Amino acid sequence: MSHPHPELGPPPELPEGALRIVALGGLGEIGRNMAVFEYEGRLLIVDCGVLFPEPDQPGVDLILPDFEYIRDRLDDVEAVVLTHAHEDHIGAVPYLLRERRDIPIVGSKLTLALIEAKLTEHRIQPVKIEVVEGERRTFGPFETEFLAVNHSIPDALAVAIRTPAGIVLHTGDFRMDQLPSDGRLTDLGGFARLGAEGVDLLMSDSTNAEVPGFVTSEREIAPVIDEVVRTAEKRVIVASFASHIHRVQQVIDSAEKHGRKVALVGRSMIRNMGVARDLGYLRVSPGVIVDSKEIEGWPPEDVVLICTGSQGEPMAALSRMANRDHPIRVAEGDTVLLASSLVPGNETAVNKVINGLSRWGARVVHKGNAKVHVSGHAAAGELLYVLNLTRPSNFMPVHGEWRHLRAHAKLAALTGVPDDHIVIAEDGVVVDLLDGRARIVGAVPAGYVYVDGTSVGDVTDFALKDRRILGEEGFISVVVVVDTGTGKLTGGPEIHARGSGIDPDRLLEVLPQIEKAIEDHAADGVVDMQQIRRVVRRTVGRWVSDTYRRRPMIIPVVIEV
Amino acid sequence: MSHPHPELGPPPELPEGALRIVALGGLGEIGRNMAVFEYEGRLLIVDCGVLFPEPDQPGVDLILPDFEYIRDRLDDVEAVVLTHAHEDHIGAVPYLLRERRDIPIVGSKLTLALIEAKLTEHRIQPVKIEVVEGERRTFGPFETEFLAVNHSIPDALAVAIRTPAGIVLHTGDFRMDQLPSDGRLTDLGGFARLGAEGVDLLMSDSTNAEVPGFVTSEREIAPVIDEVVRTAEKRVIVASFASHIHRVQQVIDSAEKHGRKVALVGRSMIRNMGVARDLGYLRVSPGVIVDSKEIEGWPPEDVVLICTGSQGEPMAALSRMANRDHPIRVAEGDTVLLASSLVPGNETAVNKVINGLSRWGARVVHKGNAKVHVSGHAAAGELLYVLNLTRPSNFMPVHGEWRHLRAHAKLAALTGVPDDHIVIAEDGVVVDLLDGRARIVGAVPAGYVYVDGTSVGDVTDFALKDRRILGEEGFISVVVVVDTGTGKLTGGPEIHARGSGIDPDRLLEVLPQIEKAIEDHAADGVVDMQQIRRVVRRTVGRWVSDTYRRRPMIIPVVIEV
Repeated sequence: MSHPHPELGPPPELPEGALRIVALGGLGEIGRNMAVFEYEGRLLIVDCGVLFPEPDQPGVDLILPDFEYIRDRLDDVEAVVLTHAHEDHIGAVPYLLRERRDIPIVGSKLTLALIEAKLTEHRIQPVKIEVVEGERRTFGPFETEFLAVNHSIPDALAVAIRTPAGIVLHTGDFRMDQLPSDGRLTDLGGFARLGAEGVDLLMSDSTNAEVPGFVTSEREIAPVIDEVVRTAEKRVIVASFASHIHRVQQVIDSAEKHGRKVALVGRSMIRNMGVARDLGYLRVSPGVIVDSKEIEGWPPEDVVLICTGSQGEPMAALSRMANRDHPIRVAEGDTVLLASSLVPGNETAVNKVINGLSRWGARVVHKGNAKVHVSGHAAAGELLYVLNLTRPSNFMPVHGEWRHLRAHAKLAALTGVPDDHIVIAEDGVVVDLLDGRARIVGAVPAGYVYVDGTSVGDVTDFALKDRRILGEEGFISVVVVVDTGTGKLTGGPEIHARGSGIDPDRLLEVLPQIEKAIEDHAADGVVDMQQIRRVVRRTVGRWVSDTYRRRPMIIPVVIEV
Repeated sequence: MSHPHPELGPPPELPEGALRIVALGGLGEIGRNMAVFEYEGRLLIVDCGVLFPEPDQPGVDLILPDFEYIRDRLDDVEAVVLTHAHEDHIGAVPYLLRERRDIPIVGSKLTLALIEAKLTEHRIQPVKIEVVEGERRTFGPFETEFLAVNHSIPDALAVAIRTPAGIVLHTGDFRMDQLPSDGRLTDLGGFARLGAEGVDLLMSDSTNAEVPGFVTSEREIAPVIDEVVRTAEKRVIVASFASHIHRVQQVIDSAEKHGRKVALVGRSMIRNMGVARDLGYLRVSPGVIVDSKEIEGWPPEDVVLICTGSQGEPMAALSRMANRDHPIRVAEGDTVLLASSLVPGNETAVNKVINGLSRWGARVVHKGNAKVHVSGHAAAGELLYVLNLTRPSNFMPVHGEWRHLRAHAKLAALTGVPDDHIVIAEDGVVVDLLDGRARIVGAVPAGYVYVDGTSVGDVTDFALKDRRILGEEGFISVVVVVDTGTGKLTGGPEIHARGSGIDPDRLLEVLPQIEKAIEDHAADGVVDMQQIRRVVRRTVGRWVSDTYRRRPMIIPVVIEV
């Protein structure tokens, strides 16, 4: 199996008749999925999502794909196909449309409705092209065909892309629930038909490639949720993703059955469920959903709250309830249901929430102690079906970290895809499909673009490195006022430390050393402010290291008078 | 069930005939286990461990129990009983002995050997009292009896403490492996005998109270490890805890069987296995263990490396191998075995290591895909046995976060312990056992004491809050030189930002605003340096917030000339 070498250079010019594929996100990570297809100078983009930051990316709100690779060619983009409306597939669309407003957005009815609601908040009016499963559409040189897939959000699609270079099937995210509550199955018949026709390249969701066997049907969750609601003594608080319409439906059905009213909590939850209800994806009897303000004074045994915060997000309602920093005062007898997956990276935060809720006496039901969640992604046993039905000439695992891509590649090899026809690429790696072979031909930049506050890309990896040092060690700043003529100290040293954990009184011990170091420099005759800065940094750095074995950031400021 | 109220005040004086129990760690957290028993003014301590920091405690090396509660009464301490030699039970002993060198340390042979090796590195020579299972010893008013328990380190003990107030059984950490490789079972017969005599208070390990059923025998791991070593194509690298002598034994046995040599990597691994070998807890044929330097040039199929770093510690050998920052260059065909638990909080770090190793082509075997680890802590089904055999009058779950303590309390209630005889306490909560009843009577401070570099306790929660702000947002410092007479600016403003992600050129835009703010202040006639500092902070803070929606730390420095 080929895999990228650190020495990959820029790709050659696209050969005639070749299809070029560059993932700007989603390969080597779970998130910011975005694949750029190029044929004869025209581009088609599949998905445009965000990645959520990890603890070593402090202060970052979102991570976007780097659009640099297509920035000068935005006019060549025929369309952006959105396979479904999860944030890791649509979250970066507003940022892409800021660069060219009229890129057509292609997707299913629900996907378009949810992206439109999001874009409205960004004050962007998109150009929308609605498609349904089974449909074929042509965008420039790309003939596309959309196939239904089942996922943890309704109305998800896979997309087949036909060019003279061959047929590429991109599954999007999918699972193989054979008894889905809405009856909408992953279109294996369609996959088989494409397989018979000849799939030249399969790009398939790798998220659960390490998980053996099969994913339980979503249907099996309903009785468990129902039992939780039925037996709950007091309040029921359900935390879920704001996009998980099926799960919310199950909770609402169960609440209604047991005579409880439902309040939705959280902006994105209210917005998405409003959209889903308007379009008929969420069915609610009149009067069952009430306003969350209204519900506060009600007897706890009459209510179900559905909120976000299932990933332990510190500002979400659930975390604030766990910290008793919310109007809803969780107490003995209350039941909290975390009806969602635990996204890797969020374990510590979720554990804190569970402990906080347990402390106040709530019963916490979660995937660790009850069958209250099933994954939205096909497991290894199911991925084999897709490989066997499509019989691809070439295979490229997508949507996963390295461990998942490797595991998926191994599955492909087991089904008979030759090792040298399996391409494991990471973000930015350029793959050309030519003469029936997919090959790595180079790499383009595909780094992280950080959103922090209102700014996009201002926070760099360099700034994050500074943040990590500041966060681990704090800083010491030393201000000296120096006479430019004599090099002598005329003010300061003023020394300030924050986050260093150094006793302010002990900090004063270093002042005479700084004074002496500047005096020594002045004695040399040549006054060099750069050099004074260095001398101050070195003096303080050495003192802290010797005294405390620590390395805070040291900021010397020299004021020239 | 009683549980602490935030309004708990200081405890009353200890009544005559009462035994007082205060946990300074281990209740509401997994780690820094330490329980202080008091009878008639004399103290007995059970365990003295460390807690490892979480991501929101940046830069911290270790967290200790706060010794303040006993600081003035160190001479009253009869002994410190160490139940076993894991860091979360012994790691804080060096720091306690710094405060009084000659506190007798009581433990089993292996526990004492390992603590002695650790104390030698701290240049401390302990006063040791060796005990074995079945033995009774008296320490002041405390009659103690030691019972064998099985755990993931050999030679672990439970301790029963008899005073006129009654019998307390403290299980330490334990599991109930019924087929242990060393034949040393948890002494359920002893527990039953104490139960017949009358256990007034049971303090039992809660770590796995949420896990249903039973823990697999350690014996079942050996064939899995053997299969991994047998089928490995090239190098085998095993990561485990430096204290897991049984696991290391299994790996060594398997290596020997398949004709591979073993190299130990990492200071603590080499030190502990040396101690274990000297005392006969680790059995190794001559010539099987070789120096890790020696092994570097050998054919990869001839070697097994055993190293630390199974928790993704960034400086450990395994992480460095994953980053290709280590002499051992992991490559296609190598096998890495993570033969250890995944300690909560380390998920992200371990995931990074698995992805790094996968990227270079290694096969990574871990508890998620093979039965290569069993827990060292009894699960719910087994905890019931202990509750039923000891039939305690009062129960206090120990060693666990809130979720675990609550789950264990529920198990106790199911076995018939009356709700009002179950005491859920957290760190610092004072529990008195008097007239056969355990009751919460107050609370004492039991906060975190942070070790950072060479200093203990200098880093406070206040400094950590600063670190979190600096780590999330960075800082902006503004230096102004102000004439004390006129309040006019005579130097600066000099503005510096680090980690803020703000373009340095844009930062200059705020300078005129600062100048104007100081001018306005000077115009008021009264020069107040405090006020100038405030004005500068407010001006810069408002500008950043308006321009970027961010809140970096703002440090105004006013130099008076």
